[in-house]
Amino acid sequence: MSFSSTPSPSSIRTNPILSLLRKQSSSSNAVPRDIRDVPYLHQSRTSIESSTTKPLTFQETIGFSTLPDQIHRKTLKRGFEFTLMVVGEHGLGKSTFINTLFMTELYADRPPSARLHPPKTVEIETRTVELEEKGVKLRLTVVDTPGFGDGMNSSECWKPILDFIDQQFLKYFQAETSFGIERKYVQDQRVHCCLYFLPPSIRGLRPIDRDFLHHLQHKVNIIPVIAKTDTLLKSELTALKKQLLSDIDKYGVQLYDFPEGDSEQAEDSHTLDKVLRESIPFAIMGSNTTLESNGRKVRARTYPWGVVDVEDPKYSDLPHLREMLCK
Amino acid sequence: MSFSSTPSPSSIRTNPILSLLRKQSSSSNAVPRDIRDVPYLHQSRTSIESSTTKPLTFQETIGFSTLPDQIHRKTLKRGFEFTLMVVGEHGLGKSTFINTLFMTELYADRPPSARLHPPKTVEIETRTVELEEKGVKLRLTVVDTPGFGDGMNSSECWKPILDFIDQQFLKYFQAETSFGIERKYVQDQRVHCCLYFLPPSIRGLRPIDRDFLHHLQHKVNIIPVIAKTDTLLKSELTALKKQLLSDIDKYGVQLYDFPEGDSEQAEDSHTLDKVLRESIPFAIMGSNTTLESNGRKVRARTYPWGVVDVEDPKYSDLPHLREMLCK
Repeated sequence: MSFSSTPSPSSIRTNPILSLLRKQSSSSNAVPRDIRDVPYLHQSRTSIESSTTKPLTFQETIGFSTLPDQIHRKTLKRGFEFTLMVVGEHGLGKSTFINTLFMTELYADRPPSARLHPPKTVEIETRTVELEEKGVKLRLTVVDTPGFGDGMNSSECWKPILDFIDQQFLKYFQAETSFGIERKYVQDQRVHCCLYFLPPSIRGLRPIDRDFLHHLQHKVNIIPVIAKTDTLLKSELTALKKQLLSDIDKYGVQLYDFPEGDSEQAEDSHTLDKVLRESIPFAIMGSNTTLESNGRKVRARTYPWGVVDVEDPKYSDLPHLREMLCK
Repeated sequence: MSFSSTPSPSSIRTNPILSLLRKQSSSSNAVPRDIRDVPYLHQSRTSIESSTTKPLTFQETIGFSTLPDQIHRKTLKRGFEFTLMVVGEHGLGKSTFINTLFMTELYADRPPSARLHPPKTVEIETRTVELEEKGVKLRLTVVDTPGFGDGMNSSECWKPILDFIDQQFLKYFQAETSFGIERKYVQDQRVHCCLYFLPPSIRGLRPIDRDFLHHLQHKVNIIPVIAKTDTLLKSELTALKKQLLSDIDKYGVQLYDFPEGDSEQAEDSHTLDKVLRESIPFAIMGSNTTLESNGRKVRARTYPWGVVDVEDPKYSDLPHLREMLCK
């Protein structure tokens, strides 16, 4: 079977799982406030609007008003699936960042030898964790790619990653087109989003970055992040972001783009989208150490010359990235 | 002519130019206090010691007591030559560090494009600057190696560097063994020392580091430095230094080692040597910005969470490295 018959990545892009997750999550601890919050009903809503709306009285109740509740209950029971891929050289703090992002210890059991010596070729390592927040379950799978860019020859290190993503598409397609019980409980293990870690020491896209972005841009939603930005001054960070955006434009790289909010969306949501869009590439930093500050716990890095709160929006885009991924 | 007939690098190591420069520099603003300060006379001093010393009276003066003065004057007139090589990936702050180390602006005229896009293969770029301190001249040549480790394939990027060093040996040998005026004014352009820049994000020697050190260790005095250490916490820096030293030992890498001080040397000099030796690999950082602090000018990096004085010995080995190279 040729791969071209599997769900095309562009369909993922136009119907982004990220935006789906975002809408579903907002309806997590209450009955959906708006029919828009239930994506499956979006289509029928448009057709209702084009005709005259007639509110039914209590006696006339058919029952479809409970549909949002039903779907809400179903999603609560099933939970959500989210597969996040992290790509970048050894030592950029990928694991630490994932721990910081999801406030968990996903890599606590990793042997110290794996920390010290990356593999010579790219490997794919997946880890799944079940997270729960106010009764809503999220099955988070993090796909790590140790060995990326760490060998002497990096000319084809995008290849194992591309193969993995293609395999996931194929698996999903096979499950979706099969008969029987499998079809009902299709586990979505496609990679929904790829965080591409750029070192803070670069001054523009390197050949390895261009190569990766070029080969993967149409397969997965890529979000570039600049790692360990606590090593950059504000002016240096601004210059680097500007240069990266210019390079992304110059080399025609297609990154994940937010779906355009419709005109009915609240004004503050538009503003937020704009702020998020302007934060790309996200400047991030991570920490495994928790400090107590003003009565709340913060993840921070304690230098001799000061303490860096890795979630402080004054110099970290981590809150924005979290907002974009999860809300 | 086969290269093996050029001065062997081991002769450089056993008669290190660094230690030579160090001794000469200490005699720069006064008559050499000790005959040891004039390296050329070291041999004859040993033979004097083995016989009985008879101080001559004024009437009997032959004139050789002025020899140290003569040599001192000569060195003042001629000045010193020092060739320093810097090797490491683009963006590790090599140029900034050289500017910081010698308090000069060696790379002020470099075009911005060179800052942004490193060459795809290793190039050798030499720059010479004449520095003067209290009447003593130093002709400093900095050999930069842009493109090292920046391409997709880094498997042979040590080669152009090795070739360059060999060429300098050959040139020096040819000048030394020639007849006529050339022999008298041999310009020493051999690479006296190589600062090897390691990124702060590594967790041990990478294949590219091992390869470089393996091929160059017997050709040049290598001093490893960890660049941009303002991104490492104290505990992280300690762990990285430990791991690097363990790897250096494991892979049998031979670094520049201080010549053992003799027993007559002052106690504090011994202590200093010990401190310097224990600082390897030197944790460094650089800055092009000068701040005024407590009435003196310091090079510093101003983060939102604090100001880092790049010469503060509490967290930077820069003063130690300068001490080792220049004093």
